[in-house]
Formats: sequence, C-alpha cells, structure tokens
Amino acid sequence: MTTLLVVNVNTTRSVTDVIAAAARAAVSPGTTVVPLTPRFGPASVESNYESHLSAVGVLDAVQTYDGPFDAVVHAGFGEVGRDALQDVLTVPVVDITEAAAHTACLLGRTFGVVTSLDRAVPAIHDRLLLAGLAGRCSGVRSVDLPVLELETDPGLTAKAFTEEAARLVEEGAEVVVLGCAGMSGLHAALSAELEVPVVDGVAAAARLAESLVALGLSTSKARSYAAPRPKELRGWPFG
Amino acid sequence: MTTLLVVNVNTTRSVTDVIAAAARAAVSPGTTVVPLTPRFGPASVESNYESHLSAVGVLDAVQTYDGPFDAVVHAGFGEVGRDALQDVLTVPVVDITEAAAHTACLLGRTFGVVTSLDRAVPAIHDRLLLAGLAGRCSGVRSVDLPVLELETDPGLTAKAFTEEAARLVEEGAEVVVLGCAGMSGLHAALSAELEVPVVDGVAAAARLAESLVALGLSTSKARSYAAPRPKELRGWPFG
Amino acid sequence: MTTLLVVNVNTTRSVTDVIAAAARAAVSPGTTVVPLTPRFGPASVESNYESHLSAVGVLDAVQTYDGPFDAVVHAGFGEVGRDALQDVLTVPVVDITEAAAHTACLLGRTFGVVTSLDRAVPAIHDRLLLAGLAGRCSGVRSVDLPVLELETDPGLTAKAFTEEAARLVEEGAEVVVLGCAGMSGLHAALSAELEVPVVDGVAAAARLAESLVALGLSTSKARSYAAPRPKELRGWPFG
Amino acid sequence: MTTLLVVNVNTTRSVTDVIAAAARAAVSPGTTVVPLTPRFGPASVESNYESHLSAVGVLDAVQTYDGPFDAVVHAGFGEVGRDALQDVLTVPVVDITEAAAHTACLLGRTFGVVTSLDRAVPAIHDRLLLAGLAGRCSGVRSVDLPVLELETDPGLTAKAFTEEAARLVEEGAEVVVLGCAGMSGLHAALSAELEVPVVDGVAAAARLAESLVALGLSTSKARSYAAPRPKELRGWPFG
Amino acid sequence: MTTLLVVNVNTTRSVTDVIAAAARAAVSPGTTVVPLTPRFGPASVESNYESHLSAVGVLDAVQTYDGPFDAVVHAGFGEVGRDALQDVLTVPVVDITEAAAHTACLLGRTFGVVTSLDRAVPAIHDRLLLAGLAGRCSGVRSVDLPVLELETDPGLTAKAFTEEAARLVEEGAEVVVLGCAGMSGLHAALSAELEVPVVDGVAAAARLAESLVALGLSTSKARSYAAPRPKELRGWPFG
Amino acid sequence: MTTLLVVNVNTTRSVTDVIAAAARAAVSPGTTVVPLTPRFGPASVESNYESHLSAVGVLDAVQTYDGPFDAVVHAGFGEVGRDALQDVLTVPVVDITEAAAHTACLLGRTFGVVTSLDRAVPAIHDRLLLAGLAGRCSGVRSVDLPVLELETDPGLTAKAFTEEAARLVEEGAEVVVLGCAGMSGLHAALSAELEVPVVDGVAAAARLAESLVALGLSTSKARSYAAPRPKELRGWPFG
Repeated sequence: MTTLLVVNVNTTRSVTDVIAAAARAAVSPGTTVVPLTPRFGPASVESNYESHLSAVGVLDAVQTYDGPFDAVVHAGFGEVGRDALQDVLTVPVVDITEAAAHTACLLGRTFGVVTSLDRAVPAIHDRLLLAGLAGRCSGVRSVDLPVLELETDPGLTAKAFTEEAARLVEEGAEVVVLGCAGMSGLHAALSAELEVPVVDGVAAAARLAESLVALGLSTSKARSYAAPRPKELRGWPFG
Repeated sequence: MTTLLVVNVNTTRSVTDVIAAAARAAVSPGTTVVPLTPRFGPASVESNYESHLSAVGVLDAVQTYDGPFDAVVHAGFGEVGRDALQDVLTVPVVDITEAAAHTACLLGRTFGVVTSLDRAVPAIHDRLLLAGLAGRCSGVRSVDLPVLELETDPGLTAKAFTEEAARLVEEGAEVVVLGCAGMSGLHAALSAELEVPVVDGVAAAARLAESLVALGLSTSKARSYAAPRPKELRGWPFG
Repeated sequence: MTTLLVVNVNTTRSVTDVIAAAARAAVSPGTTVVPLTPRFGPASVESNYESHLSAVGVLDAVQTYDGPFDAVVHAGFGEVGRDALQDVLTVPVVDITEAAAHTACLLGRTFGVVTSLDRAVPAIHDRLLLAGLAGRCSGVRSVDLPVLELETDPGLTAKAFTEEAARLVEEGAEVVVLGCAGMSGLHAALSAELEVPVVDGVAAAARLAESLVALGLSTSKARSYAAPRPKELRGWPFG
Repeated sequence: MTTLLVVNVNTTRSVTDVIAAAARAAVSPGTTVVPLTPRFGPASVESNYESHLSAVGVLDAVQTYDGPFDAVVHAGFGEVGRDALQDVLTVPVVDITEAAAHTACLLGRTFGVVTSLDRAVPAIHDRLLLAGLAGRCSGVRSVDLPVLELETDPGLTAKAFTEEAARLVEEGAEVVVLGCAGMSGLHAALSAELEVPVVDGVAAAARLAESLVALGLSTSKARSYAAPRPKELRGWPFG
Repeated sequence: MTTLLVVNVNTTRSVTDVIAAAARAAVSPGTTVVPLTPRFGPASVESNYESHLSAVGVLDAVQTYDGPFDAVVHAGFGEVGRDALQDVLTVPVVDITEAAAHTACLLGRTFGVVTSLDRAVPAIHDRLLLAGLAGRCSGVRSVDLPVLELETDPGLTAKAFTEEAARLVEEGAEVVVLGCAGMSGLHAALSAELEVPVVDGVAAAARLAESLVALGLSTSKARSYAAPRPKELRGWPFG
Repeated sequence: MTTLLVVNVNTTRSVTDVIAAAARAAVSPGTTVVPLTPRFGPASVESNYESHLSAVGVLDAVQTYDGPFDAVVHAGFGEVGRDALQDVLTVPVVDITEAAAHTACLLGRTFGVVTSLDRAVPAIHDRLLLAGLAGRCSGVRSVDLPVLELETDPGLTAKAFTEEAARLVEEGAEVVVLGCAGMSGLHAALSAELEVPVVDGVAAAARLAESLVALGLSTSKARSYAAPRPKELRGWPFG
C-alpha cells in the first residue's frame, strides 16, 4: 500500500478536487491519493509573488499532515517550492511541471506547453531551464485566461486550449503538455483532436511518484537537498 | 494485463536473463516481461560499430516477435536505435539510458554515470546530449572492464563500480546511474555503500514503460517518429 | 535624495548590521540606506527550505515598511524571492547574487564565487543559470562553515576564504565574488592577498540600485513582473 | 593517386550515379572516386528506421569492397552511421552533413538547410547538435517531397528548393546547404537565384576527404573511434 | 572627483556631442565626462571592417590623452575593442553594449535590442554571446537606417525605432535596449510610448563606470587582460 | 592556377617563413602561396591589444597587395580580424583557428589545443565560442612560453608541447590542435609521440582555402560580411 500526498498550490478546494481525481485515475489500485489544500495562500497562483506564498503554504500543508505517506506530488504547474519539500522530507517529491516534461520526452522529440495566463510563460521556461529540459521544449503558449475562469465555460476553455495546442504542433511540438494543474477533462478532448500525445502533469507525477516508491528510490540527501541544519525559526506563526 | 518486450542489445543469453530479472523485479504484479535476445549481432556491444549492428538486431527481434505487446524497453545503455523502433511501432518505446537519466533527475539536482569501458563514455555523453539531459549530468566514469568480464569476478566488479561511483559523488553527483544493462546486483551494494540513490536503467525503463501504458500514452507520430513511407527493402535477408 | 531598503534574508540583527554598513559604504552621499530584518524566519538561510521561508519574510518586511523608498536590495546570496518583490513593487529590486555577477563581468572574463556551506553551491549555480550568467562563472567553492560561525573566528574565516578564492583563481577565475551577504571585512583582505578584484554583492547591489534610480529606470511590468491580479489571500497571518 | 569510396545510403543506383558525378566534379585530377551502392536496404532513406538499416548496408558495402582506398565519404544527408565506419577503418571518413556544415561555416556566420521531407528536419537538427554546429544553423526547411520524386519533375523541384531557400535567407541564413545527397543540378540554379553561397555536401565531403589524405590526417583511434575489441558476431548473414 | 573618458568610435563630432550629453546626464554631480573623438577612422561604424579600424582609433584616442582619468566608456554599440583597452589600462573600461545588457537584465527577464542597420544585428548577437548574455536577449531588430542618417529626420527615426521596439515587446522583450550610441532623445519617446523600460547604453555605461570607481574596483589583470609584454611595435605611425 | 595570400599577423619575417613553408607543404601542385608580413604592428601577438593592432596590419597587407589572388589565409591563432577581411574581399578568407578546429572535428569527437602563453587561452576559447565549436573542444592548455622564444630551444619547446598535449589526451582530447601559427616541425614529433592526429592550422587553412576556390565557393555577402558602405575614412595614414 502506497500513500501519495498530492498538494494543490492554491486554496481553492474545487481545484484540489480536480487534481485529486486526476491523480486517482492515474495510480495503481494499491495506491491511496491524499489530496491537500494549503491552509493559507492565494485562491489561484498566477505570479511569482503568489508562487512564493504558495511554496510556504504547501510546506505547511505537508509538514502539518499527521499521517504516514510515501511520496509527495507538488501540484503547481510552473511554481517554485519543490526543492524546499525535498530538503525536509526523506520520501520522493515530484513536481508536476517536471513530471510532465520528463514524460513528454519519452513520447516525442519535442514538446510544447499550453498554459493559462501569458505571464506564466516565462516562469514555465525558467522551471524547464533549471530542470535541464528547455532544449526539448519547442514552445510555451497561453490561452490568456485566469486559472479560476477556466472552469466557467468549459467549452470555451477547451476551444482555446485546442487552438493554442494546434499552433504548438504546427510549430514543431510532437507532444503537448497541459501547463496547468487539474485539466484532465481537456486532456481527452485535446488528444483526440490533435492526434498527438497530451500529457497531464498531475497524472504523470502521481504515476512517477508511485514508481519511485516501488523502485525503492528516494530524494538524494547528498548535497542540494540535505536536511537543513537545526536552527531557530523566529516568529514563525505556523506549525 | 500489460506485456513489455524487454530487448537485450547483445546476443549473450545470460545477459538477457539478468536484464529480464531486473525488469521483473521492477514492474507491477499485473505486468508480464518478455525478454528478447537478437538472433544476430555481437556478443557484447562496446563500440559505435557494434551499436549500429545491434540496432538492426533489436529491430529484427521486435519485428519478428509474433505475440501482442504493449510497450518495448530498449535495454542497451548508451546505444543507438531507440528511434528506429519508435518509427515502426505504435506502442511506447523506452530506452534505458534515457529512463535512468530522467528518473535520476527526479531524485537529485545532478547525476553521474558509471559504465564499463572507457570508450563508452563519449557515446553516453552523446545520448544524454540528444536527450537534452547533458546539463544535469555531472560526469561519466568507467571501470574499464569489458561487459562480458563484469560477471567473471563479481567482487572485483562491485569494488571497481563503488570506487568510480564514490569519485562521481565527490565530484558533485547527487545520484548515481548504473551505465550498463543488467547490473542489478551492484545496485543494492552501491546504494548502501554510497548513501545516494542508485538508478538501474532497466528497472527504471520497465516501470516507466508500464506507466506510459497505464496513462494511455504512446509515441507521437506527428513528425520525428511517423511511420516510414511504404517502400521496397532490397536484398534484406531478415524477416 | 534616494532611499534604498536593504533587506536581510535572515532574522539575525548582527548580520543586518554588517549588510547595512556595507551598503552605506557603497552608496553616494545623497543616498539613505534603510536596513530591514524580517519579523519571522530562520536565523540563517542555508537550504532551499530556509530560502523559501525567507522569501516570504522578506516580502513581509518590505510590504509592511511604511515609509517611502526608491529601490530595494535583496541581500541574500543565492536565495530565491527577488522576483516576488518585483511583482508587487514599481521601484527597482536588485538581488545581491545577480548584482555581484553582473559587476564581476565588467571586470574580468570569468568570475568565481566563494560561499559558506557546500550545500549552497548548487543553489548559487541555479541562480546564475537563471540569470543567464552561468557561462561567465568559472566555479563556485565553499569554505564549509555555517553562516553564523563566520563571525566566530574572523581570522580563521579570512584564512578559509582566502584559500578557496586562491584555488578559484588558479582554476581560471579572474574576479572573485563573495558568495555570502555582509562579508565586507573579508573583501579588503582578499583583494590585497589575491591581486584580483573582489566583489561584495551588497556593495554592488546598493550602488546598482542607486544607479537605476538615478537613470530613471525601474522594473518592467510588461510580462514576468506584472502586478498580480487582485484576489483573495486566504488565512494569511501577515500584514 | 588518392582513391575515395563514396557510399550512397540507399539502394537506388541512379542516386549513386548523381552522387558520383558530384564527387568527381569536386575532386582534384589525381583523385579517383569509387561509388558504392549498398547490396541491401531501402530504396530511399527518409526515417530513423531506414537510416539505421542503411547504416549497416553502408558498413557492408565498405567492408566487402576489396580494393585499396584512402578515405570514405558517407553520402547520406542527416543519416546515422558515420561513427561505425570510423571504428572499423583507419582512413578518414567524412559525412556529407557535417562536411556541408563545416564548409558553410567558413563562408558565412549562419547557414540554413533545405531538405526533402519535413520528417527529416529533426534528424538533421540532431546531427548538427552532435556535431556541435547547431548554433551556426539558422534553420532547416523542407520542400516536403520524397527523395525519389525529386527527379520526377526537375523544374518543380528546383522551384520548391528555391522558395524554401529564399525563406531561409530572409530569416537570416547567409549560406544555404543542400540537405539531400546528389542535388548538384540544383546547386547552380539556387546559387544564381539567391546570391548566397550554396553548399552541396557531397562535393564538400569529397574535397575534404581528399584534403585530409593530402595532409596525412586520419581518424583518431584514441577513444570514441578505437577499433572494436575482437569478438564473436553471431548469426550475421553478411560478409 | 571622478573623470570618465567617453570615447566615440567614429570620427563624427556631432555624434560625440550627443554621446557626451547622454553621459553627462547620467553621472553624479562630482563626475566629469571627457568626450573623445578618434583622430582617424570611419565617419560611422557599420561593418566588421570599420569596427576593427575604430578599435585602433579608440586605442589611439585614449593612449594619447594626456590628462588623468578614472575610467573609460567605450561608446560603440556592438563594436570590438573593449578588451584591447583593458589590456593597456589599469582603470575600469565599460563597453556600452555590455553595460546596456547588464542593466536591462536587472529590469526584466528578457531584453530586445533595436539598432540602425540590419547588418549590425549579427555583430550585436556575437557581442552578447561573448558577454554570456545571449540567453537573456529575446531578439535584435533594425530600422535599417544608416547611423549618420538617424539625425536627418528625427521624426522618421523615432517612428522607425518605436515600430521595431514595439515588435520586440510583442515577441517577448520586457526591456528595450537602444542599440546605437547617442540616441538619448529617442529614449524618452520610446519609453513613454511602449510602457517598458528603455536602456541607453551610454547612460548605463557612464553610470556603471562611475560606480566601479566608487566601489574601488578595476579590471582584473589576472589573465585575459594582463598588461601586454613589452615588445617592439614596428612601423606604427601613431603615438 | 590558384593563388593564396597567407598573411602572418606579426611583423617577424622568420615566423612568416615558417608559415609559408607549412602552407606550401599543404597545398596542391597547382597552388601558389604568397606569404605576407604586415608593414606595421607587434613583433608577436600575445594580447587582445596586439591582436587588434595586428587586425589592422593584416588588412593593410592584403589591401595593398597589388597582384591577383583567389583566397586569403589569416594566419594568427586565436586572433581577431578575419571578419574585417571578409567584409572588404569577395574571395574566401580562412582563419587558421577555425580551420584547425573544423578539421579536427572530422577526425575525432573532441579536440584539445596547445598554445604558447597562458593568457592566450581565454582568447582561443572566445574564438571557438563564436565559431560555434566550443562544445567540441575538451580543453586549451599552454606551455607558457612567449611566441618568439619557441624557436630559441626547439628541443625544450617540443618537450613542453608534448607534455601539455599528452595531458589534453589524458583529459579526453582525441585530436590535438597546434594553437600557434607555424609550428610545423612540432607537428610531426607530436603526432608520433601521442598517437593521435595533430592538426596544424596553417596547413589546414591553406588546404581548405584552396578547396573552397576549387568548389567555386566564396564568402557570403548576404548580411554579416556585406561590403561596407562607401564612406569617408578620416586621417587614416595607410593605403
């Protein structure tokens, strides 16, 4: 029995629900998905500022979770904070941006990403650059819709994603990555329409996290993600 | 029920057996591993010349296999030919070099590779460069032992791998990748000794291949790996 | 009259004092340096975990400062969070890692960085990679002393920094960057000993921030650092 | 007297004839061009699959040639296998993709490549990446015509190549490389039309191979291209 | 009192005047700007040939200047020769191309450059590549007007620069760099029109040079810019 | 009949003689080598300063040569100025640094460079970076002997070059490039001793220049190397 914590980066429970469903659909029968929503932070994460607030909210959600778990999925596309979790945990931590990109690399020579707002585009590029995968990414495009409006008119959202994804394919993407957590519905429609594989980061990350556990692999504590030295944390209002 | 073809690149059956065991230990209960050995080709693959011969042997082995299968694992570390399989198949094809590298990237900021002969080092660098992952690799080292001598004196082999892997860690590797197919025994010893995660490409590839099948993902046929146009294959002595 | 907020990333006031002194020594007569210490966070920042906590502490310190100011210096070497400040402000924000690297590039073809703990080395590489300046960096070395012990035995600290900096120069660094906030005392000693320019990030950043103000330049709001969209910030315990 | 083996990658003799003519037109009076056509393999090479089959066909053609020779030209644009020949020979081996790119670099700051089918584009990018020359390539474009149809309507073919080459020049290419073996006729037309140098890989490779021989230079046997260790080649149906 | 030599690269005094005014507007009250015009060389620098002639003219202008000075600004955008000055001087030397790029990096994630003639575009790319900043540059565009015609019809020039700069912003530039010395008038108009920061290299370089002096920093003499060994300079007609 | 101008970058005629001999030994019977020595400039080129002076001396030597010629070899290793010649000529111009590097790439996967003074090392790296070939270079080492002392004690020089070249090979170089013009004597000794190909830039460049002429190829005038616009050259004391 493997237990995965799947942590939303925003405080909107309906988004957590979509993420949880996507993760559950992806894992093996023996794996339990425990969805977490941060106690504090922005309702949606669409800027560097909000990304940094969410990093701490995600840390808090994981650190105050009192049950056992075998791995963590950091379910913010293009967000920071995966490394902070790796420092304080000994189990694997999988970021959905990286999971999607690594998975896409197994399916085609290049991948493109479709995300929500245009301002998320540079942040996604930066995450891929740090992951060493920028060379495989043929482009990042946005539908220019805020995260929380994606659910307002599903038909319109699907149309917008399909259009941008089609442009990515025309420009050379062989695989499309959904650059936003919890868009599993879109996943099916896009793949049928575009005739290329479409990767959802939450599904990919959940499956990868489960696989790392099965393979007996965990985060290296050798250098970058060594446990922080014990020290005073002044004035911290959280657990 | 998922069936994985796991194809050795050389014609030595004892190596195929080790690879098969590693793959079986890595997959879920519902997955069947079918090991294949090429009908022709070199007894071990340790040069560009042999790598190219093996690419055709691997193709032949897969194309003449007459049962159903859901994915293929190309079990040659640092070898060419994964893309040829992707052209002619519609199921996922996972190369163990890439599988190991992608998996290692989820566990640490950098990884190092220990391989058999020194002359394999440049080829491994080239595979990682094409995979876009060279930037995450902190180094590739060899024990300078031929592939088929690795089994002769397991104690000596383990000692040599441990020494080179320890050097990689000193030089900044946070994760170690076993740069040779079927060294699963070494895997346990190395990880205990070095206190960093050690990734075996066969195990990683088998698990990733199974995961791609579970996620409903397959090779993109959009461009690089589109099916070859039908045409005459003159004088070809194989099936 | 130009006012610079110079924000320490840890909660240790003696470090803030050293940073403030370095900034004051660097700016023009007409510039006022206002040092800030976060209300909460770690006593020293030496991991990704602490870096993320400090990012929020720095945001809070700046957002709750109630006087006018013309620019901000983010005084954490190798830390995250500069971009979050750029999102919420309209004045220039200068990070000391980047300020030091850009300044070093004007003085020599390559620069090396000496930092405190070895585990900070990868984080510094990542900051330089994102800044596009990794190609100019010939190496990052650490003295392997915790930040708060650097002040314990100044002679020992100076000796350790000099030794590592000398190694960087032997390996090709033409300029040395002090990879830790507030080591101004070391600056003079190192430069005299090594006969290469030694750049202190706090001094460089303070001077650059002042210069941007004088040139009438500020952060672009065009894309990456556009103001966040107004939205609910649930359960946030800070101002 | 220098003898060059110029090996076609496909089994179509009319293509071999065009290649031979291009090579003969490029070399010095004292050099003899011996054209070779593989005994087996695809009628044209337009996929990774066919490229791998052709690599073995080219090896066979060279290894079964029973006369003396001083250098080999591998006349497949964007194809694999040059390194396999280097392993088994002691004379220079020149690949036409690389020869064209190196030559183009001497003539302008950037070069563009026009090739036959769109699916060849990624493979050409990969060859240039491995050759370290991707940074000099401003783009690769295709006329989207199969190799064997290029001869069907020479006027149409010339028009298509000229149009794509003109686009490359508009987009910044200062030199144009013909990305397909044996298009020497196009060479003259394109250069006259576009007023930029146009490089034919076969001509460039033949001349470079001859030059290496004249300079007394051959393939390094130090590491990557060392002779394979003697070993059993099981079930191999060829010479 | 700090004295900056600001050296024009061409022999046109009206251009020197504009450069001098831009530098004076940028520096602190206590800094004196001494503009220099080469005694010989081209009336405008718009090719590699002219750039090399100007490099020697700039060297001569600085070496024959007989007063004291604290730093030098090399005021040619995209031109060569900054390193030659660094060899023969002990004071800081700041190139306007690099100064503009480094400054732009502090203001946005990416910058674009607008220059005069199209043929200057590749040279600017090369300067940025050597400076290690090419990764931050989203594009270089030209108005395709010769340098000395920029002053002929200021309205037309402003319109052309605004159009190209707007295209750069559309394509992802968050900051615009004026890729030509002495276009300070355009600076104000562009910034107002485009709503992104616009960096003038002369202003940036003058301020940076002054800052380096204030920080007590100078060119490293460790390796690249060590003083040339004393030796005979045959037939040199200049001082 | 092909005529090559082979231009030394320094004003020392004995060096010109060695260069001329190397070029003559490399070209075909029908090719005439015309060696040129600049009328003015440094006795040896060992700094950025001297490199820039030599660039103008080389230009002058070529522009004042009054006979016909078919191509130019710029015989300064690691020096600037090749592009200036390309601007003003319509025949091919081949730089020995680039010629050596391109040639080495045809012989092995990586090459190393042995040069005279340590301070030349960064300049050589920069030339290779601009040529797009830095990725193929495994290292540059110096014997730390001034150019004009290389002839003083040939035995000592040969020993020093052999030692540094052997280190390059140990560190992964498969081919060695002589990083200094006119060391043809060393060429034979090194190659015999090290058992790897050794490339002399002058020989490689002379042969490549001749080949470009034979192939009917010349410098692209499309953009980077277009002819300079006619304009006044004020105060220029040369032809």
